Amino acid sequence: MGEVSKLVCRECRKEYTPTLRHVCEECFGPLDTVYDYDKIDLTPNSFRGRVKSLWRYIELLPLNDPDRAVDLGAGFTPLQRSVGLAERLGLKNLFIKNDSVNPSFSFKDRPATVAVSKSLEFNLNAVGCPSTGNLAAATAAHAARAQLPCYIFVPSDIEPNKIVQASAYGAQVVAVKGTYDDANRMLTQAADMYKIGVVNVNIRSYYVEGSKTLGFEVAEQLGWEAPDHAIVPTASGALLCAIMKGFEEFVDIGLLDDCNTKITAAQGAGGAPIVDAIKKMEDFITPIEKPQTLAKSLAIGDPGDGIYALNMIRDSKGFAEDPTDQEIRDGIRLLAKSEGIYTEPAGGVSIAALKRLVDDGSIDRNESVVCYVTGNGLKTPEAISSQLPKPIIIEPDIQSLAPILSR
Amino acid sequence: MGEVSKLVCRECRKEYTPTLRHVCEECFGPLDTVYDYDKIDLTPNSFRGRVKSLWRYIELLPLNDPDRAVDLGAGFTPLQRSVGLAERLGLKNLFIKNDSVNPSFSFKDRPATVAVSKSLEFNLNAVGCPSTGNLAAATAAHAARAQLPCYIFVPSDIEPNKIVQASAYGAQVVAVKGTYDDANRMLTQAADMYKIGVVNVNIRSYYVEGSKTLGFEVAEQLGWEAPDHAIVPTASGALLCAIMKGFEEFVDIGLLDDCNTKITAAQGAGGAPIVDAIKKMEDFITPIEKPQTLAKSLAIGDPGDGIYALNMIRDSKGFAEDPTDQEIRDGIRLLAKSEGIYTEPAGGVSIAALKRLVDDGSIDRNESVVCYVTGNGLKTPEAISSQLPKPIIIEPDIQSLAPILSR
Repeated sequence: MGEVSKLVCRECRKEYTPTLRHVCEECFGPLDTVYDYDKIDLTPNSFRGRVKSLWRYIELLPLNDPDRAVDLGAGFTPLQRSVGLAERLGLKNLFIKNDSVNPSFSFKDRPATVAVSKSLEFNLNAVGCPSTGNLAAATAAHAARAQLPCYIFVPSDIEPNKIVQASAYGAQVVAVKGTYDDANRMLTQAADMYKIGVVNVNIRSYYVEGSKTLGFEVAEQLGWEAPDHAIVPTASGALLCAIMKGFEEFVDIGLLDDCNTKITAAQGAGGAPIVDAIKKMEDFITPIEKPQTLAKSLAIGDPGDGIYALNMIRDSKGFAEDPTDQEIRDGIRLLAKSEGIYTEPAGGVSIAALKRLVDDGSIDRNESVVCYVTGNGLKTPEAISSQLPKPIIIEPDIQSLAPILSR
Repeated sequence: MGEVSKLVCRECRKEYTPTLRHVCEECFGPLDTVYDYDKIDLTPNSFRGRVKSLWRYIELLPLNDPDRAVDLGAGFTPLQRSVGLAERLGLKNLFIKNDSVNPSFSFKDRPATVAVSKSLEFNLNAVGCPSTGNLAAATAAHAARAQLPCYIFVPSDIEPNKIVQASAYGAQVVAVKGTYDDANRMLTQAADMYKIGVVNVNIRSYYVEGSKTLGFEVAEQLGWEAPDHAIVPTASGALLCAIMKGFEEFVDIGLLDDCNTKITAAQGAGGAPIVDAIKKMEDFITPIEKPQTLAKSLAIGDPGDGIYALNMIRDSKGFAEDPTDQEIRDGIRLLAKSEGIYTEPAGGVSIAALKRLVDDGSIDRNESVVCYVTGNGLKTPEAISSQLPKPIIIEPDIQSLAPILSR
């Protein structure tokens, strides 16, 4: 279970035993969790009767003691075969991976469940993260389940309603007078000094392992096949890389015959440094100082895994699209009314990118396409509320129905 | 599949073939769906490999053609074995049934998925409901999936933000100048005239079948046992009766040996007609003209199934509790911080009732207790936001951490 063999530097390939570290001491490259794949013996039948959460993939998750998994049921979310949206777009094999129904209502529960579990295993005093959104809620929820103190660091000018959910879970919100970067730096400094598992910083090598289960699940739900095309809402690039790692690990251990998935990044226009690099055919990421997009949860100006995502998109022959705010709103509404799935702007970005790629002929109608929807529309009603049709107001008598209903 | 044999009047026992009817033509009693239990041959093994939604119980659901199920993945939600809350309350076998992670984020997806599916089967033109909350969202989401028009009837003084989610799914909101009862009456009249499946009115006999899966699932998740005690947030009483029907049907077909579940109703003080009747030891329900409770989704003054719920609670030796608004808020926060589950007031009512019953010694610490949590806290942040601790504001230097963090 959790056959971790080592951490390996993504840059210089130096190897480490899997302890509380996330950066290569030689070259400062990020450390990836690498398993002893030859020792892992899994077939599709192995999964029958397993838990209905991402912990069903325990052999490929970095926990030594599976009984210490902090499990709220994250993962194993529906892969919905599209009917309405597929018809509108003329696609035959479109699927929506719906991560809005996770325990704290976004895909961030995946990395959070792994990172908080791992923090317990490392006997840390507390967990935390710098976040003003989905990650704060996910970390706080899993900390509550683990009965660990949780610290959410935010800039002090944050809107109070953004932290209600994390506060409800009992997290202590620390508002730093300064920018988001100041909040991030403060918590990073605190991590060692106070033995805090900062889920996306000092636990990062394990944290990202949670996200790759979005690859595992799709492959399992497609009947042990990788899709022809995957469209991923992209911020730092970590999720996109993790999904591809998921497919590739399943190939490594023989659960998939192969993986020829084209992987596509979707970012909001005005905050799309990875998409910009692809479109300009550059080999580097040009940071954006102040990203401006409706998709705030994707608005990272200097994406940490940008260069890796860039290479992965190119190697896979994938695409990159940066829909505008209006396309994002239209994407949210199109998904809701054609599939019954209510998402936040990040999911709208994914759908809007899909629509662009269909319109310009980049997607063949027979391809199997998976569109990742990573968050919940209840968190951002303001994104679309002003654009929805107004109610029809009628008098309380039956005659007033005739003009609005048809027999 | 869907071995419906008949509809049976709950009052006079007159039988009907299962068509589009919901009221007895002899005595106006409600019609219940009754299956040919002798023909249903299910064992625990039958469920291996089945879909991860409530449609896994297809033999006990009223659909003739299972391929026409309108399935967004409602149901088969986590039954979380409590650690934190159980310890605080001194209980050894406490479980939380977490229905906040349904497709439209409340338990109402269960009856909606069945009712919309059945409306398709009856070839109706559209679906709808009178609702200002969870039922509107659930009906609209499933209508979107089915590509059926959906009409949500509301009183015209509703707060616009309450209908954002249903509108996003493409439902037409019809605002009737009048009360909620006027909106209800208008849509009920429209149902026959315009062939609309009003999910909780003319489809009601099928609709409630969706809710009983909250009984099926708990029994399956407990390893094919009914719990000793179930605590149910209660509005009309229909959900409480449905859960009990779920346990009893599993006994009827031999999936459970027996069911000795005490079933308890939880309503908000000021809107608790069923609880009032139990506490006053009356055999009738005294309607409440204007229910006033934080738990608006439970605030039904004249509960349609109240008398049936009353009898069921008494027969089962269950209890009834009506927590105050402050107890409900405390219940929401207690659940969030001890379990990592974020619920709306109805769920807080359930937890607050549990706490009362533990405090007064009505629950034995060894009993298996299931607390139903039926909705999502993201829908009602205002319920608790003013009571949460404020952020700690600090200067952006590392020295300011010492007073707030411990090594």
